[in-house]
Amino acid sequence: MTAPGHGAPPSNAGPTPVFQRLAIIGAGHQGSSVALAARARGGMAAEVVIYDAAPAVRDRASALGLAHRVAPTIADAVVGADCVMLCVPVGVMAAVATEMAPHLASGAIVTDVGSTKLSVIQDVAPLLPAHVHFVPAHPMAGTELSGPDSGLADLYVGRYVLVVPLPGTPPGPVARITRFWQAAGSVVDQMDATHHDRAIAMVSHLPHLIAFTICGMADTLDDEGKGEVLKYAASGFRDFTRIAASNPVMWRDIFLNNKVALLEMLDRFTADAARMATAIRTGDGTYIEQQVERGRTIRQGLIEANQA
Amino acid sequence: MTAPGHGAPPSNAGPTPVFQRLAIIGAGHQGSSVALAARARGGMAAEVVIYDAAPAVRDRASALGLAHRVAPTIADAVVGADCVMLCVPVGVMAAVATEMAPHLASGAIVTDVGSTKLSVIQDVAPLLPAHVHFVPAHPMAGTELSGPDSGLADLYVGRYVLVVPLPGTPPGPVARITRFWQAAGSVVDQMDATHHDRAIAMVSHLPHLIAFTICGMADTLDDEGKGEVLKYAASGFRDFTRIAASNPVMWRDIFLNNKVALLEMLDRFTADAARMATAIRTGDGTYIEQQVERGRTIRQGLIEANQA
Repeated sequence: MTAPGHGAPPSNAGPTPVFQRLAIIGAGHQGSSVALAARARGGMAAEVVIYDAAPAVRDRASALGLAHRVAPTIADAVVGADCVMLCVPVGVMAAVATEMAPHLASGAIVTDVGSTKLSVIQDVAPLLPAHVHFVPAHPMAGTELSGPDSGLADLYVGRYVLVVPLPGTPPGPVARITRFWQAAGSVVDQMDATHHDRAIAMVSHLPHLIAFTICGMADTLDDEGKGEVLKYAASGFRDFTRIAASNPVMWRDIFLNNKVALLEMLDRFTADAARMATAIRTGDGTYIEQQVERGRTIRQGLIEANQA
Repeated sequence: MTAPGHGAPPSNAGPTPVFQRLAIIGAGHQGSSVALAARARGGMAAEVVIYDAAPAVRDRASALGLAHRVAPTIADAVVGADCVMLCVPVGVMAAVATEMAPHLASGAIVTDVGSTKLSVIQDVAPLLPAHVHFVPAHPMAGTELSGPDSGLADLYVGRYVLVVPLPGTPPGPVARITRFWQAAGSVVDQMDATHHDRAIAMVSHLPHLIAFTICGMADTLDDEGKGEVLKYAASGFRDFTRIAASNPVMWRDIFLNNKVALLEMLDRFTADAARMATAIRTGDGTYIEQQVERGRTIRQGLIEANQA
């Protein structure tokens, strides 16, 4: 037996980083969190360069020391990087890809953190030179916060990251992106883009749409009604407000870029809510009770899965 | 100046209790919490008697020591009580009122904690003898838990309680119920029953209906889909599951007994969601962004109101 503290000899050499130079495009909640994680944890990237289109955000990224270097242009950010990670709203992926494409190093891996995958692949893949690999990904982590001050070095610890490889991408780049996220503390799952967009429509996009809608509805009330919503929010409403505080541009882009799956999920939800309304109208208590029981089942599953 | 600890002389006599004997009917989450609060805090009731229709719940209430006494019958519980508090699902208020009415003490105050007020007033008021006062109330506190083990002595601290006096009730009984809840640590607001039911439909009943519906929808997915909902719930879905874990019978009764206001709020919500769907379908990014901004406004208000 080895006494505590007398196990393996201490080593100052951390794990070999997956990337030599990581260029992060976009210093919002995700970009700043990836930067902080890469700086705080061994094994992700030896050097972190960050760029943001907004000069004020670049200044703030500098002041916060998010990266080893804040690049003044996107070209400067990506030159010489063996990984470029797009952390921008999905609506501007194409514009960013266009701007950076001529400057990408040969053999570089381009990846992203966007919440829609079919649209990002459609927007970005055709714009990239043949000498780079595109490995789309989506970390299932984030808070309702936004901006360069909202970065969290441990945002990805214990969270899922969905890697969505394109058909024909060699296994090497996919394995490197996988190891990168594992080094961030994440659990990596792989799926195809269509599957991803439907699953995420259900588990993320629809809940956000509902939360925005009910909070928007509360905002249409008169002052007295609004005051009551605020005072009595703890009775249920409050649970919907956290995700409703999310970034408007990011979510506008997500909704517009996962239109088909999201509208299908919303249709299902609306039909189920209408069925509940019919049960209420006709006094069908058995149906209502059964529906509530179903919800409890899911909650129980969550608690057992240690997610709640 | 007085040194800390040398202020008013210590007193073993707490504040005079509002009631001499409080009879609580129903030992679920609310009933057990009121009992524990009354026992733990001075000023609410000198003696607490509790009754539940289920023998197993009565046994559990005894084992937990929720009250000074667990009554074997409802008649036994209410005899000699100067306050009787109905903590049962709103669907059985009438049956409970019928059973206890002949045994109520002259001058007793009957109150309740039901989440619907028009229905409770309609169901209970006509059944009570003229020699008691009925002061309906609704504490805006509670968790998703249920049963006698879920009682929390501090459940009402800092929370709102809505007192809904009937026209013609003298001020004395209303003031006593107000003082009772203030002694539990609550802030008391007064409103009429119609106003109450509409406000609560918006802030509590509609959010619960939505949460039950989206969780029920997730439960209809195939095993793979359900597994993904559980794995990736943190990306939004999870926020809806807490309140979806609530008591099915209680919520069935609430929905059936606040039909008009709840269906009206659901209609508004559905119309707003449909408007959002149209914006997504037609690519109206400005509308989507504005709706998200409105939700953020409400969240900001909540944070400022210290409720979040």
